[in-house]
Amino acid sequence: MGLSLNQATVKYLGLKDAVDLCARHGIAAIGLWRDRVAEAGVAESAAAVRGAGLHVSSLCRGGFFTCADVDGRRAALADNRAAIAEAAELGADTLVLVSGGLAAGSRDLALARRMVADAIGELVPEAQRLGVRLGIEALHPMFCADRCVISSLGEAVDLALAFPADAVGVVVDTYHVWWDIRLAAEIVRAAGRIVSYQVSDWVLPLPVDPLLGRGHLGDGVIDFGPITAAVAAAGYDGHVEVEIFNADVWDAPADQTAVTVRERFATALSGPGV
Amino acid sequence: MGLSLNQATVKYLGLKDAVDLCARHGIAAIGLWRDRVAEAGVAESAAAVRGAGLHVSSLCRGGFFTCADVDGRRAALADNRAAIAEAAELGADTLVLVSGGLAAGSRDLALARRMVADAIGELVPEAQRLGVRLGIEALHPMFCADRCVISSLGEAVDLALAFPADAVGVVVDTYHVWWDIRLAAEIVRAAGRIVSYQVSDWVLPLPVDPLLGRGHLGDGVIDFGPITAAVAAAGYDGHVEVEIFNADVWDAPADQTAVTVRERFATALSGPGV
Repeated sequence: MGLSLNQATVKYLGLKDAVDLCARHGIAAIGLWRDRVAEAGVAESAAAVRGAGLHVSSLCRGGFFTCADVDGRRAALADNRAAIAEAAELGADTLVLVSGGLAAGSRDLALARRMVADAIGELVPEAQRLGVRLGIEALHPMFCADRCVISSLGEAVDLALAFPADAVGVVVDTYHVWWDIRLAAEIVRAAGRIVSYQVSDWVLPLPVDPLLGRGHLGDGVIDFGPITAAVAAAGYDGHVEVEIFNADVWDAPADQTAVTVRERFATALSGPGV
Repeated sequence: MGLSLNQATVKYLGLKDAVDLCARHGIAAIGLWRDRVAEAGVAESAAAVRGAGLHVSSLCRGGFFTCADVDGRRAALADNRAAIAEAAELGADTLVLVSGGLAAGSRDLALARRMVADAIGELVPEAQRLGVRLGIEALHPMFCADRCVISSLGEAVDLALAFPADAVGVVVDTYHVWWDIRLAAEIVRAAGRIVSYQVSDWVLPLPVDPLLGRGHLGDGVIDFGPITAAVAAAGYDGHVEVEIFNADVWDAPADQTAVTVRERFATALSGPGV
């Protein structure tokens, strides 16, 4: 598996600067974010990545389906259809879906999860029509209430298996799933459905903003070798996206970050089957 | 199920003051902490709870088994044997076990989990001899690295089922397990093994110290009715321990906290089967 740099790792770079950074450091693939793509323009972004010879390993992100009201739900679906079209134009391997948390004012987890399943079902025809695969991402359970009610890989796999394989798969992100005693078994069940493999490390202590607790590979406690080997054994042969939300990483010079990402990718992901 | 006040909810009270608080507010049971018991003396603590007619629903806590070195492991087992003796003397329904996180300097989750299983196995004869049930508590996955590698109820149930039912059970704590899509199924599997039911709410946003994000029942997003009904249906007929780690709750007058705990217990836990 080759290295991809997720744009969120160099948060302060615009799309063209991030593309240039990858080209400069011999990183052959990039994960894009919709806000930066919108800022640069979708056609211009597609031209920039193609001009640099970069592969687009993912577009982040769609989702946020858990709206209690009809208008909110309609707006979410429209936004996701737009995201699918963008992913197609960019040639992204997958559109990453972060499902959304509990609906506003609701404590009904089962209802929120049904909303997610229903919304994905509605998007499948559009995804198939444009040849985009939707990637259901399980987020860490600490984000269940407010960001993503899909809280374990097994849950994401169950959801994906309800839809055609050409349209819906799962994202494996080490930061979100490393703790799960069922992880290896769920990766086996995900065979043929893994559409993105994202990596960052779990660093202690947790920061004030729990969204920003991720670290460079090797700075934390995650054992990347066995997880990566399992993902490879499940048939995934795409890129490994390094995606790090961390204020210190964001403040570092982007070239330094790119060097560290490359070095750590080479060492932390080594292991049997990788 | 009757209400029990876990002593951690009124963190700044010594044992006798916490016992008096329960008596004053008609709370018939208490969950004790070893540091406060040690401060008051074990025999004196036992006399105080008996004198007040209180039931001891749990003693918190044993565990922290994940030591890489022989001396650390021996010390952990000795401390847990002492905790079992204290639980017996106090007449506690269970000794709550928090397993410990990854061993120092290690990224091997499977190894840490084997250490936990091995240690519990070594403690079973002592627990049986003194008639104490060990309660394996799954902590939220955000504590997996540094506090507890048992990260889901299913994992705790699997571990408990490897040992005799009179010696080992599981603790269901809503704060730690509410997000789990498998929760209802795992509570069914835990039938006859639930030795403690602890409740607090998941309040947003997460605080600076992630240990202190719990709230009074009803202040957060957890739907207590269905979980409580499932725990009851699994045969648990002990107390419901309100255990809240929250700096604001700790700063409030203890009598006000006791009133709130009683009120919320009456409303939030109502539901079918409760």
